[in-house]
This record gives sequence, C-alpha cells and structure tokens, in this order.
Amino acid sequence: MNIIVMKFGGTSVAGNRKLKNVAEIVCKELQNNKIIVVLSAMAGETNKLQSYLDEFESKNSIESDLVLTSGEQVTIGLLSAILKNKGIKSIPLLGWQVPIITDANHEKAKILKIDKKRIQDYFNDNDVIVLAGFQGINIDGNITSLGRGGSDTTAVAIASAVDAKRCDIYTDVEGVFTTDPNIVENAKKISKLSYEEMLEMASTGAKVLHTRSVELAMKNNLTLQVLSSLSKKTGTFIIDEKELIEKEIVSGVSYSKNEAKVTISGILDKPGISAKIFGLMNENNINVDMIVQNISQDGISANITFTINQKDYDLTRSVIENSKNILEFKSLSFDKNVAKISVIGMGMMSQSGVAEKMFKTLAKNAINILAISTSEIKISVLIGEKHANIAVKSLHEVYNL
Amino acid sequence: MNIIVMKFGGTSVAGNRKLKNVAEIVCKELQNNKIIVVLSAMAGETNKLQSYLDEFESKNSIESDLVLTSGEQVTIGLLSAILKNKGIKSIPLLGWQVPIITDANHEKAKILKIDKKRIQDYFNDNDVIVLAGFQGINIDGNITSLGRGGSDTTAVAIASAVDAKRCDIYTDVEGVFTTDPNIVENAKKISKLSYEEMLEMASTGAKVLHTRSVELAMKNNLTLQVLSSLSKKTGTFIIDEKELIEKEIVSGVSYSKNEAKVTISGILDKPGISAKIFGLMNENNINVDMIVQNISQDGISANITFTINQKDYDLTRSVIENSKNILEFKSLSFDKNVAKISVIGMGMMSQSGVAEKMFKTLAKNAINILAISTSEIKISVLIGEKHANIAVKSLHEVYNL
Repeated sequence: MNIIVMKFGGTSVAGNRKLKNVAEIVCKELQNNKIIVVLSAMAGETNKLQSYLDEFESKNSIESDLVLTSGEQVTIGLLSAILKNKGIKSIPLLGWQVPIITDANHEKAKILKIDKKRIQDYFNDNDVIVLAGFQGINIDGNITSLGRGGSDTTAVAIASAVDAKRCDIYTDVEGVFTTDPNIVENAKKISKLSYEEMLEMASTGAKVLHTRSVELAMKNNLTLQVLSSLSKKTGTFIIDEKELIEKEIVSGVSYSKNEAKVTISGILDKPGISAKIFGLMNENNINVDMIVQNISQDGISANITFTINQKDYDLTRSVIENSKNILEFKSLSFDKNVAKISVIGMGMMSQSGVAEKMFKTLAKNAINILAISTSEIKISVLIGEKHANIAVKSLHEVYNL
Repeated sequence: MNIIVMKFGGTSVAGNRKLKNVAEIVCKELQNNKIIVVLSAMAGETNKLQSYLDEFESKNSIESDLVLTSGEQVTIGLLSAILKNKGIKSIPLLGWQVPIITDANHEKAKILKIDKKRIQDYFNDNDVIVLAGFQGINIDGNITSLGRGGSDTTAVAIASAVDAKRCDIYTDVEGVFTTDPNIVENAKKISKLSYEEMLEMASTGAKVLHTRSVELAMKNNLTLQVLSSLSKKTGTFIIDEKELIEKEIVSGVSYSKNEAKVTISGILDKPGISAKIFGLMNENNINVDMIVQNISQDGISANITFTINQKDYDLTRSVIENSKNILEFKSLSFDKNVAKISVIGMGMMSQSGVAEKMFKTLAKNAINILAISTSEIKISVLIGEKHANIAVKSLHEVYNL
C-alpha cells in the first residue's frame, strides 16, 4: 500500500471554492495510492482565535490550545464532505481521534507517538484520511497544539509513521525560490534542496516550511515536496544531500528584515557571561536570533552582538541598560533597524571564495557589514535595513542564481 | 455537594466582554455551590458554519457534526481561561471528554448516558466545569450534535444526571413573557410556569427554550429558570404543575407567523388517508405543524387542513397537486399567509368560557378564524397573517395578562 501525505496550508483551504480545488488535487493522486490529507485552519482563523486569547492575556495553556485547535475541525469536516460527495471513501480525523499522542508542553507540544496500525485500520474502509494538522492529545486527555505552522510537522510526522512514499506540502507559492521573488524579479524556483539548506533557508527568513518539520523529515529521511495548490507545476523537492548529484555552491539568498541589533562592549571575557545575558533575555521572553562574540581590541574584554525582533527593541534596551551591575560592560550600542542577509549552499563546504565574493559585492554597493556569522553551508551578515533589497538583488546576481 | 447548572446562549457569549460578564455571574453563584456552565457557540458562528455546509449540500452527517460543533470549543476555552485568571479552579470539557454519550443519530442525536461519577471526579480538583453544549460522542467515537438549540438539552441532561439543585438558562430576554413584548408593550414576565405550559408556549412560537430540554426537565422534575445574562432580575421558573399554587387560567398568548395553510377537501374518510398525506410531506422533508381534520358537509368525505412553513409553500403545493390520483381529493385550497395564535394556561382545564372569550374577541376585531385546534391547556386558531398583531394585542388585553 502506497501512502502519500498531502498537506494544505491556511490560504489553500480558506473557503469552499479553495477546498473544492484541494479535493480535485487529492483525486488526482488517489489512483494508485491511499492518501492522508493534513489541513490547517482557514487563513486568518487562528489569528482571530489568538486575538481573543491575547485580549485578556490568557496564560492558561490547556484553554489556549482548546481554542486554537478548533479551526482545523472545520476544514477537515468540509473537505471530507466534499470528497464523499464525489463518491470517495473518506474519513475526517481530529488529533485525538487518531490519536496523535504528544507531550504535555502546551502551545508547542512535541509528537511522541502515532500508531501505524491504527492508520492502517482506517485505510481498511477508507481511501482518504483527512487529518487535522497542528493538534494532538497528551496522556491527561487534554488537547495540545504544536505551535504556529505546526501542520507541516503533523504532515511529516504522520508520513514518517506510515512510511509514506512522499510528503507534499501545498502552499501559496510554487516552491522554494533562490530568493524572494518580490524583491528579485528573476528569482528562480529551486528544483532540489538538501534538508540542511532548507533548514538554513527557513531559519534565515524563507518562511516556506516550519523548521521542526524539516528537522523531522531529515531525521526520517523523508522526501518533501513544496508546491503550489494553484498551479499544476512540480515544486521543490527537499531530499538527503547524498541524493543531490550536483551541489550548488550557492542555492539561495535569504533575508530577514525587522531585526534590531544590540552590541555589548568591554565585558569581562570569563565563563558565564553569555549565559547571564541570554538568561536575562529568556526571562523576559525575548527571542534572540543571531549571536556573534569576539574578543575586544584590548585583548582582555569581549564584545557580544546579537539580534532581536524589532518589536522587542524597547524592552531589550531597558533590560540591558538596567543590568550594568550584573553584566559589568563598558559600553552599549543599539541599532533598531538592521537586516540579516544570508547566502546558503551545500557546495560552499568544498569551495573557497564564496564569502569573499559576498563581502566584495556588498562593498561595491557601499553597504557596511555590521556583523558576520557563518556555518558550513551559510554565510550571514548584518547590514542596515535600508540596504536589504539592494543587497539581496546584487547577491542574487553575482552568484548567477 | 450542591451543583448548579448555568447555561448561556450564543448572544451571551459573543466576544470577550460578554464572556467576562458570564464569568462574573458564575462567580456570584460559586460561593456555596459547585457550578457546571454549559455554553453555546458565539452568536452567528453556527450559522456561518452551517452556510459552508449548505453551499455544497453536504449530506454527510459525520462531517456536518464535526464542523458544527467547533464553535463551543472556542467559548468554553475562553471562559475557562477568564475564570482561571480570576483564581477560580476551572476545567473546560468538550462533549467527548466528559463523555456525553449519544446515539448515532447525527445532527439530532439523543443523549444516552452521562456518568455522574466522572463529573464528581472532575469536581475533586475543580469548582467549575465549563462544558460545551450541543455536542456528544457516539459509541463509534464520532462527534455528534443534538440539533439547533441543543445546548439547552445538554444543560438539562447534565443537571438531571448530577441531581443539580437548579438549572438556569441565561438568554437575552428576562424570562418567558405573557406574550411577545415587541407586539404588546405591557406584556409581563411570568414568574412561574408549568412544564406543560412551557411546552405549549415553545411549540407555538415562544422560542425561549429548546422543546426537548423542557420535556427532559419535566421527565426528571428538574426546576428550570429562564433569565437574562444582562439584568440582575429573577427570571421565569418552570416547575411541576403540582407546585403551582395558583394556576393561571391563561398564562400567555403566543403566536407563530410565516405559516401557510393547505386544505384538502372531499377526501375519502377511510383509514390510511392521513398517513398517505403526511407520508408525502415527510418524503419531501416538509415540516407540518398544526393538523385539523373534520368530516365534510356531505357526511361521507373529510377535509384536512394543515400548516407548513411559508418557505415550503411552493414545494408543498406542487407535491399535493401532483398526487391527485393517490389522494383522490375533490378540491384544494391554499393560503400562503396565515398565523397561528394560541392562548395557553393550566387553569383552562377546570375553567369554561376561555375558548368562547377568544372567539368573541377575534370576532369583535373582524378577524376570521380559518381553523381551530385545542389541547387540554391550549387553544390555537389560524387567522390571516395580517391580523396577527391585533389578535395578539386584543387577546392579551381580554385575559388581563
């Protein structure tokens, strides 16, 4: 029995017309396969529910998850009904009905177990399972959610559990692009990417897939395809790097705007100081993205630069400024408007000159680099936010993407 | 342990501000009692969900119930979170979590069993249970719904199961009125009504309570109170007739507009003919309300008059007209615009002259009576729809309500 998992996001299921389109796509794949369709709530729905909760600052996780997971119940019911109207044997299932067992970590639960046998039983009488994404149940019988974007993770987890042939993630773009087509007109769809590249892309701003879902696919060596629910075109396959015959030196350029930069200079270079800084951030629920540490000019003290979301700028600034007696720094500098630009590619590992080309290109465009951070397959730089678009455009061109 | 059940309808829970008001009402009752709060979905929500289903004429009951029952999940989560923010020990429960076991009759399921022990267990750690109305689960593990207005039934069923002290039904009116205050300005709130009177009121147009919930309360001899979630006033108590010390001859005047009348004349007065007519109606999903049958002037054939909802008028007319060979009638007459006016009261049983007064009053206002039907505690007449308001007003006055 071949099983294909197909996941459709909020924009692909917003309303009956779109759900009928989803039903048609499902029918096409049905011929020689059993299908598990994983759905999100209609676009806008989860935001609406979240806004109810935000209004009175609910910190009650059981309740929050109960409220937030109601949206998928609607979409799976509607899609299954449309499929049945077409004569297809379909069953809608909520997370607790499968069941998708998670830990008790409400609002960001991790999937612990999906019983393959149960899925096979459902397929005895049905050709399609329409499964609610984003949700599960913990051992106390409470409904849990996997966090925003969690439907991707549901799809990958169930695909792994049933050894699915493929897991297709349908969205409102045609795949993963070499960079954002809104900035660079001739950005191209990438046909194949390694898990590692996708992870770097995702964490540096290309918000196509939920990071956890890519990690999970990598762990289970499951082939993912990102494709559009509107066009009929093949999308981007995300596969094991060993299967990538020719590795691109640079596969894509990604960016993340709306960042702010904090630099703490002249702190004592001794164990525990980073832990203190990021402990403070954690206590205040401030998400830290990039971290760069370097020794200071005096050779004794250190400088730490990190980035945060612009919305946390004021809070971060006051937290750091009020911690002089704990952190014992010499000086502080803040920049409220920075962007992170990254070039990503598996081929980078065996190829020199990639970084040099990046820095030269930025210099030629008179863009000052505020910080640099690298991994084996990625180089990220911080620059002034106003330079972001020109940086992305020129880098996209210089690497022949 | 005293348990009070409080049910809040859609208009009482539409939005955070209203839910906070509900939380305050719950807190007041909490002092010496444990509370079960039963909630509907926010006003408008179930209609929105139903409209999705209607759009493609879903006849798939499992899916319909799945979609329709998502709304209460939101309101119970929000209310429980608000209560917890106030420091109250609260737990939100969906129908399947209690569980509320129903039969498999989707979209109008009947409650089969609620385990009192389970409720008591929940009360070991909690003072308030916030329960989703309208929904249950059948033995196949599918979510079922009790039909529109079913939250009243959930409230009465759970109140009966736990031997609740009282079941308060909060709504957007202050109780049951002697007639519709929109028509008769000085309509008064009734302080006590018997179950039977409430049933007649409900079935003749006073849409305050779900009929099934009143039947269930009567069966279990459970005291109901209908009251407003906005005013602080005592509402209308619905109790056993034995507890009504003084029975009103006429407790109220109710009406139902938007009805249409069908009269089939000169049908053979033999067994089975009514079954044929109403079998036809049933096959075509036409709801029949009042039925009056009488012998015809010739003493051999019979006339049958019945009423339907105006929206079914065209369908009914064509069904009947096309069944001449089956029904063998002499003639037909239709009236698209009629209203049913009823006077209701327990005291009527032991009191003569109530009907006479009704007919005289209508005659004085030059209102022609098209049909009459009576029960022990109710007299209903059909009149032209345009006379409905004046009929209600004058009857309300003549019975000194």
